[in-house]
Amino acid sequence: MIKVGIVGGTGYTGVELLRLLAAHPQVDLRVITSRSEAGMAVAEMYPNLRGHVEIAFSLPDVEQLAECDVVFYATPHGVAMAGAGELLERGVRVIDLGADFRIRDIALWERWYGMEHTRGDLVEQAVYGLPELNREQIRNARLIACPGCYPTATQLGYLPLIEQGLIDTSRLIADTKSGVSGAGRKASVGTLLCEASESLKAYAVAGHRHQPEISEKLSLVAGHQVGLTFVPHLTPMIRGIHATLYATLKGEPGDLQALYEARYKDEPFVDVMPAGACPETRSVRGANTCRIAVHRPQGGDTVVILSVIDNLVKGASGQAVQNMNVMFGLDEQCGLEQIALLP
Amino acid sequence: MIKVGIVGGTGYTGVELLRLLAAHPQVDLRVITSRSEAGMAVAEMYPNLRGHVEIAFSLPDVEQLAECDVVFYATPHGVAMAGAGELLERGVRVIDLGADFRIRDIALWERWYGMEHTRGDLVEQAVYGLPELNREQIRNARLIACPGCYPTATQLGYLPLIEQGLIDTSRLIADTKSGVSGAGRKASVGTLLCEASESLKAYAVAGHRHQPEISEKLSLVAGHQVGLTFVPHLTPMIRGIHATLYATLKGEPGDLQALYEARYKDEPFVDVMPAGACPETRSVRGANTCRIAVHRPQGGDTVVILSVIDNLVKGASGQAVQNMNVMFGLDEQCGLEQIALLP
Amino acid sequence: MIKVGIVGGTGYTGVELLRLLAAHPQVDLRVITSRSEAGMAVAEMYPNLRGHVEIAFSLPDVEQLAECDVVFYATPHGVAMAGAGELLERGVRVIDLGADFRIRDIALWERWYGMEHTRGDLVEQAVYGLPELNREQIRNARLIACPGCYPTATQLGYLPLIEQGLIDTSRLIADTKSGVSGAGRKASVGTLLCEASESLKAYAVAGHRHQPEISEKLSLVAGHQVGLTFVPHLTPMIRGIHATLYATLKGEPGDLQALYEARYKDEPFVDVMPAGACPETRSVRGANTCRIAVHRPQGGDTVVILSVIDNLVKGASGQAVQNMNVMFGLDEQCGLEQIALLP
Amino acid sequence: MIKVGIVGGTGYTGVELLRLLAAHPQVDLRVITSRSEAGMAVAEMYPNLRGHVEIAFSLPDVEQLAECDVVFYATPHGVAMAGAGELLERGVRVIDLGADFRIRDIALWERWYGMEHTRGDLVEQAVYGLPELNREQIRNARLIACPGCYPTATQLGYLPLIEQGLIDTSRLIADTKSGVSGAGRKASVGTLLCEASESLKAYAVAGHRHQPEISEKLSLVAGHQVGLTFVPHLTPMIRGIHATLYATLKGEPGDLQALYEARYKDEPFVDVMPAGACPETRSVRGANTCRIAVHRPQGGDTVVILSVIDNLVKGASGQAVQNMNVMFGLDEQCGLEQIALLP
Repeated sequence: MIKVGIVGGTGYTGVELLRLLAAHPQVDLRVITSRSEAGMAVAEMYPNLRGHVEIAFSLPDVEQLAECDVVFYATPHGVAMAGAGELLERGVRVIDLGADFRIRDIALWERWYGMEHTRGDLVEQAVYGLPELNREQIRNARLIACPGCYPTATQLGYLPLIEQGLIDTSRLIADTKSGVSGAGRKASVGTLLCEASESLKAYAVAGHRHQPEISEKLSLVAGHQVGLTFVPHLTPMIRGIHATLYATLKGEPGDLQALYEARYKDEPFVDVMPAGACPETRSVRGANTCRIAVHRPQGGDTVVILSVIDNLVKGASGQAVQNMNVMFGLDEQCGLEQIALLP
Repeated sequence: MIKVGIVGGTGYTGVELLRLLAAHPQVDLRVITSRSEAGMAVAEMYPNLRGHVEIAFSLPDVEQLAECDVVFYATPHGVAMAGAGELLERGVRVIDLGADFRIRDIALWERWYGMEHTRGDLVEQAVYGLPELNREQIRNARLIACPGCYPTATQLGYLPLIEQGLIDTSRLIADTKSGVSGAGRKASVGTLLCEASESLKAYAVAGHRHQPEISEKLSLVAGHQVGLTFVPHLTPMIRGIHATLYATLKGEPGDLQALYEARYKDEPFVDVMPAGACPETRSVRGANTCRIAVHRPQGGDTVVILSVIDNLVKGASGQAVQNMNVMFGLDEQCGLEQIALLP
Repeated sequence: MIKVGIVGGTGYTGVELLRLLAAHPQVDLRVITSRSEAGMAVAEMYPNLRGHVEIAFSLPDVEQLAECDVVFYATPHGVAMAGAGELLERGVRVIDLGADFRIRDIALWERWYGMEHTRGDLVEQAVYGLPELNREQIRNARLIACPGCYPTATQLGYLPLIEQGLIDTSRLIADTKSGVSGAGRKASVGTLLCEASESLKAYAVAGHRHQPEISEKLSLVAGHQVGLTFVPHLTPMIRGIHATLYATLKGEPGDLQALYEARYKDEPFVDVMPAGACPETRSVRGANTCRIAVHRPQGGDTVVILSVIDNLVKGASGQAVQNMNVMFGLDEQCGLEQIALLP
Repeated sequence: MIKVGIVGGTGYTGVELLRLLAAHPQVDLRVITSRSEAGMAVAEMYPNLRGHVEIAFSLPDVEQLAECDVVFYATPHGVAMAGAGELLERGVRVIDLGADFRIRDIALWERWYGMEHTRGDLVEQAVYGLPELNREQIRNARLIACPGCYPTATQLGYLPLIEQGLIDTSRLIADTKSGVSGAGRKASVGTLLCEASESLKAYAVAGHRHQPEISEKLSLVAGHQVGLTFVPHLTPMIRGIHATLYATLKGEPGDLQALYEARYKDEPFVDVMPAGACPETRSVRGANTCRIAVHRPQGGDTVVILSVIDNLVKGASGQAVQNMNVMFGLDEQCGLEQIALLP
């Protein structure tokens, strides 16, 4: 059994981690910390966990965390940076669901996140936890930077085309739509039901923190700097991301459907839909799956990729568990076989 | 492994059965029939099942069904009545999620369902599949009549009080609220998103088919005919039933919280909430759990019970699997340990 | 033209007042105050008002307010109590959408609202602003206490039966359901889309502030203290209240449908539905209408009344404007002829 | 008073026309036809109209329609084509909310709509009813082809840039999102609440009927054939369209904000948002307004235009009434001053 700790488990990625870890046959959940809720039983905050999770939130205690085999950080940026170093030194593996170690370019990170980065050394060590891209490095990683939710859907959508050099990477357009849980579980007017339901809007058009993350990772794949316009939208649902990705084909690309099927045929969590299909976000609700379809409207030179995930699962907590499975040599699907809840 | 067949699996209780059975470690899903969709892969209709269910819908074929150990009917009323007899004769156990065998009073059934009942003999044999009430009979049953969704939430809410004779049973009021999936997956104007979202209404106030079912079963428990006013409401969500149950206490009832906790302490799928709590339907979304709270507003003689279930799970397919587990001597929780999806 | 001021217009009743007053042909909107948003253009906070409302929020200034003919308080309880007195002394009429003057029994008010009431004298003066009950007093009132949202739906539903002495008033049961806008526009976790959508729950079962308000007003009508069990529910929609009201008939009541139609035949904002109908909350979305249906399930002695309003219109801002129209001798429907938005 | 008839008023554009026309001070609503619902009072189907619309649906009768000054067709394609000719001959003006006369290229129309077009002569006569583009021709038109919902939002978004020749029109990308009411009020599984809520998907990626309409109209403005990739999405809300429009700037375009403000400064129904803003669809719910924002992310050469409308108002019935106002010399805003319902 893997001894697991969670730092900062009161948000939506936290409760989702608990849902997955409580059902994981190889996990012994030891500790979950929260400064604000220390002493409260986890199941009191999250009644769905009644009967499944018995522990209570506790104050962060490095001794307790150091006894774990792996610690997940489900915290805002800045927290993992401050605490992960000591745990790593004591031999604990760390999986960060936050943004601290995602971007290799420290100056870029500081510009977008508006704070100083104090652990450039850990950024060096960290492996970007997209198993479909980096599985081998993840196996031996001590520190994982889990991708953001939009970056997961977007990268999995673009990867086959960029790896094969089939598109003009100077002018990528990612029009992305997210459910409201992406904004987290904090009291805020903008995400009240009365503000966010029955409405749809774009936001952060001038710049969103996931744009540099996606750009950097796709540029590494492409071998040169890509140009990406990234426009996220807030949509009236709880879970789900739908990325609609546009690019211009550079020449006759051959059979794109076959390309995608081949690229992902051994991937347990990427499902290439049949030709002509359009994946629905609900088809992955609660599941660690990314479903992708590739279209070429009217046979033109614009390719359109549709990529859907559950932002809390493949976009966050499920992917974190998938990384853990890879790191500890478990079956990658262990504890992640939930079927999406539909309807 | 239990060989399982499903008759009529294209509706919401069908897809939910598939979700549960596909993950059930003791089940070998052999056949699922649909006259209208024969030949279509199940996962084509329900993309959440891609990678989990490989079979296709087939035409009903009694030979094929007769090779199963148990057959679930997820069909409108009238279908199980016509087909279950032959399967039972051939040694197959039958679990009907529909209404054909729920009500023992045939004349009453015929009045509410508007058709002749041709298998009164099977009604005699059938066991009403509410394990919290009839577990012992279910163990040896050949034919199970699964309770309706409203009846499940309502009976589990009232049982402790009626068993102990604490309330005036001549004037029960059940104000119940259901998500739209209770209306099924048929094309209909009234359940379009544009008609049923952002609105709430009562319906069938003059009479709903679940009223005689609840009355009959509670009357059996009470030992006399109960009087029940039952008003269902359609509410703008997909899953969930919330029953708000009112009754007048006959005298000083003692500690109601303790009564409920004692009644259900060994029940794996009934969760009595802490005193003062109000269960949310989302706390059971996707789970086979009924959460109940008992209140006595301002200490008066009116008792208010709040009872929530997922209508597709504890109110239908999950309860059907629970019955199967009991019938086949499995751990009652086998394959039913899903944690509710929240948020 | 009536010169109008609003105190505290940043909440949902505030924006709804603005929507109605901006379109009211007899209103000259002079001032809207907000301590927190002073200086911000109203249309910046509420983009639906772009092009319709030009003014900005300003700091509360009694001189400015005193130049108005009428001032609406759309504030939490306690605010109108502190400020209305001076305005009244200076000849301004005051319409309070909050709770300060609703309950005549000061001790009762203090118990439920948890603060001292400093203006019992104003409570004496105030007229309870339910025009269908108190139209004549409203005409001459200087100070109006607008009813709460649940109280409006509940009282309009029960009034005909209680006025005619047809029901046992010792055991009224009001099971009420509200959209989330009833909770206001304040940052809070419980009303986030991710917490309140796709779910339904009861709340405040032990006691809700609208219970004593309803009890006091119905008791006045009955001529004796009524007994009321009041259970509110939070439902996943923005607007709407559905009150499902239960009572026991004392004898053969005659034609209840005719009774309701007669009681409300001259009321412009109460619509008695045809016999057998069930009103939907969406049928009044955005309109100042209460739709009511009366049922007697299976001809028994339990009567069920269904009463729906838009909590922000007939349950708050629309009713406030209706009161203003009555007070200023305008056509009661002036500025309130909006047709509900459906779908 | 303008005598008005409606053909086919049972759908969502029909009820929306009724809501607007019932409140229009210059309209005398004479007749509304429906083959399927003849004899039913309009307010029985649409309870929001109780007390506002007294007439009943009637069978289509050309004599009755011919007595009107103007007849609106709120029908599927093919119906107006069959009936409008006779009405026009008898001097009735016709406003078609459907698709029959939108596309000038008959062969193109026939390919996309899958039927023969029998009235090419009327297509010649018809004026495309986008007042912001064609106001002068509309004044004298006998037959109006109202634009589709997506085409309205998309054209208003692109017009200023194309008129000024600022963008590369060979590679336009319109990523559009619609509420479910765009699919109409017909019984269908795909638009059930349980299928369409809590989910988001693209559809018709291979080709949607609004693509050739938009292409043709924008090409007329550009003076050459434009290239347009058009991907619509179904989103979980009732009303609203959000068009996110992408294009590449051909050079330094100057002040785009000023350009948009100048282009639309005299347009009563187009609202250019302040620089940096992102319009929400709810800000136009129930209103005949298009709100537009123009962005240039990080100052690059990709321009992003955000354009929102209520698909049933500015995208259909409101625009139809706006056309009527222009045709009959009324104030263009007459009867269209509704403020959007928010929240």
